[in-house]
Amino acid sequence: MKIAVIGATGTVGKAVVQQLAVRHDIIEVGNSSGQYQVDITDIHSVERLFEQIGKVDAIVSTAGKLHFGPLQELTPEKFQVGLRDKLMGQINLALVAQHHLNDGGSITLTSGILSEEPILQGVNATTVNAALDGFVRAAAIELKRGIRINVVSPTVLQESLASYGPFFYGFEAAPASRVAQAYSRSVEGAQTGQVYRVW
Amino acid sequence: MKIAVIGATGTVGKAVVQQLAVRHDIIEVGNSSGQYQVDITDIHSVERLFEQIGKVDAIVSTAGKLHFGPLQELTPEKFQVGLRDKLMGQINLALVAQHHLNDGGSITLTSGILSEEPILQGVNATTVNAALDGFVRAAAIELKRGIRINVVSPTVLQESLASYGPFFYGFEAAPASRVAQAYSRSVEGAQTGQVYRVW
Ligand SMILES: NC(=O)c1ccc[n+]([C@@H]2O[C@H](COP(=O)([O-])OP(=O)(O)OC[C@H]3O[C@@H](n4cnc5c(N)ncnc54)[C@H](OP(=O)(O)O)[C@@H]3O)[C@@H](O)[C@H]2O)c1
Ligand SMILES: NC(=O)c1ccc[n+]([C@@H]2O[C@H](COP(=O)([O-])OP(=O)(O)OC[C@H]3O[C@@H](n4cnc5c(N)ncnc54)[C@H](OP(=O)(O)O)[C@@H]3O)[C@@H](O)[C@H]2O)c1
Repeated sequence: MKIAVIGATGTVGKAVVQQLAVRHDIIEVGNSSGQYQVDITDIHSVERLFEQIGKVDAIVSTAGKLHFGPLQELTPEKFQVGLRDKLMGQINLALVAQHHLNDGGSITLTSGILSEEPILQGVNATTVNAALDGFVRAAAIELKRGIRINVVSPTVLQESLASYGPFFYGFEAAPASRVAQAYSRSVEGAQTGQVYRVW
Repeated sequence: MKIAVIGATGTVGKAVVQQLAVRHDIIEVGNSSGQYQVDITDIHSVERLFEQIGKVDAIVSTAGKLHFGPLQELTPEKFQVGLRDKLMGQINLALVAQHHLNDGGSITLTSGILSEEPILQGVNATTVNAALDGFVRAAAIELKRGIRINVVSPTVLQESLASYGPFFYGFEAAPASRVAQAYSRSVEGAQTGQVYRVW
């Protein structure tokens, strides 16, 4: 398969590439790095990406920023970070990809454990991750030409504990290599509308 | 209790007002109707509303628009309808209300059955409703001064079948009066972070 990984140069993305590159042709896409660049928050940039890479069999997104901060200090602008970037960014990818994937292709997005297990300062993350899980449930029943869509919902990665650890005391971390298997299940499996929890 | 109902003049809101007015002082708020007007998509308008009505013990929101349409024709602009109105509109209400409610007050929002039971043309609705269910789970653990937050997730109302019926073949509709009881459970009960499903 020809698989485009958007966010390929990140902590999750690198592990996904390693998992899938053994069997498939991988196109590595980043924001400022990778073989191709895209800004997922801009649908025109996403359209240009698909013009450049041509037809693919699968896209995997491991990109998307969130806002972390106390509820008391949240503003619409801060909340917009996650809505614009991790939520609409990944939805932009799906909206464009549905027209550019080969028949029977797949779309795999990334949400996260906070959708169901909230933490302090994580309101934006829980909202956005829950929205992504919902988006995939609904999009799955409307996609044409046998195209599938799933989302991987990872717990915190062992590789990310140095940066996010204090937010995740008491959470069992997973190695990136284990999280990457869920992406393989989505891309190389046959289910659709699934939330693959790695917890 | 002094309870502000935002969306008081709508199908759901009217039933909520009827349910709660027997025991409480209700402030009816609409967009163009009601005793007070607000545009929940504009946080400054929400702030002005709370300056006008003063301290309250509970707010209930039964407002918020969604976009319905095929996935193949979705654009970021169409998707923004639900994100801006039903999602951020209700989040704006919660963000402002947390500073204006009396101690031990409550916030009750509205999502809907589509969060878990997707329908054709309902991608925006499922995403937004799932996001609201998530928002409430996360906000509940951060609210101060004993303030609670819940969301009511109704099935389609019998009173709305004339308008939305064809989207909801095979769904059991509920009378508005039954849906209104979930709002009473949220406002007059003691739980927080709950999704009250009326299905
Ligand atoms: N790490 C964890 O523990 C963990 C756990 C659960 C969920 N997640 C989720 O997994 C996703 C990836 O996390 P991560 O830790 O791997 O992040 P990361 O290391 O910061 O990597 C982010 C990747 O996304 C790309 N990117 C950033 N903004 C972009 C944009 N606007 N358009 C296109 N690409 C963009 C980056 O490219 P450049 O490097 O070129 O900027 C990079 O390849 C996030 O959504 C995160 O919430 C992470
Ligand atoms: N009806 C159903 O079967 C059903 C089922 C599940 C969930 N829901 C959800 O329940 C909520 C209410 O539905 P409904 O059928 O009762 O709607 P509705 O009859 O159209 O009533 C909407 C109410 O919200 C107000 N409103 C609209 N836009 C507003 C804004 N920007 N700022 C402040 N107020 C605004 C309206 O005020 P004006 O009249 O002054 O414009 C009206 O009071 C929606 O979120 C809907 O998705 C409805």
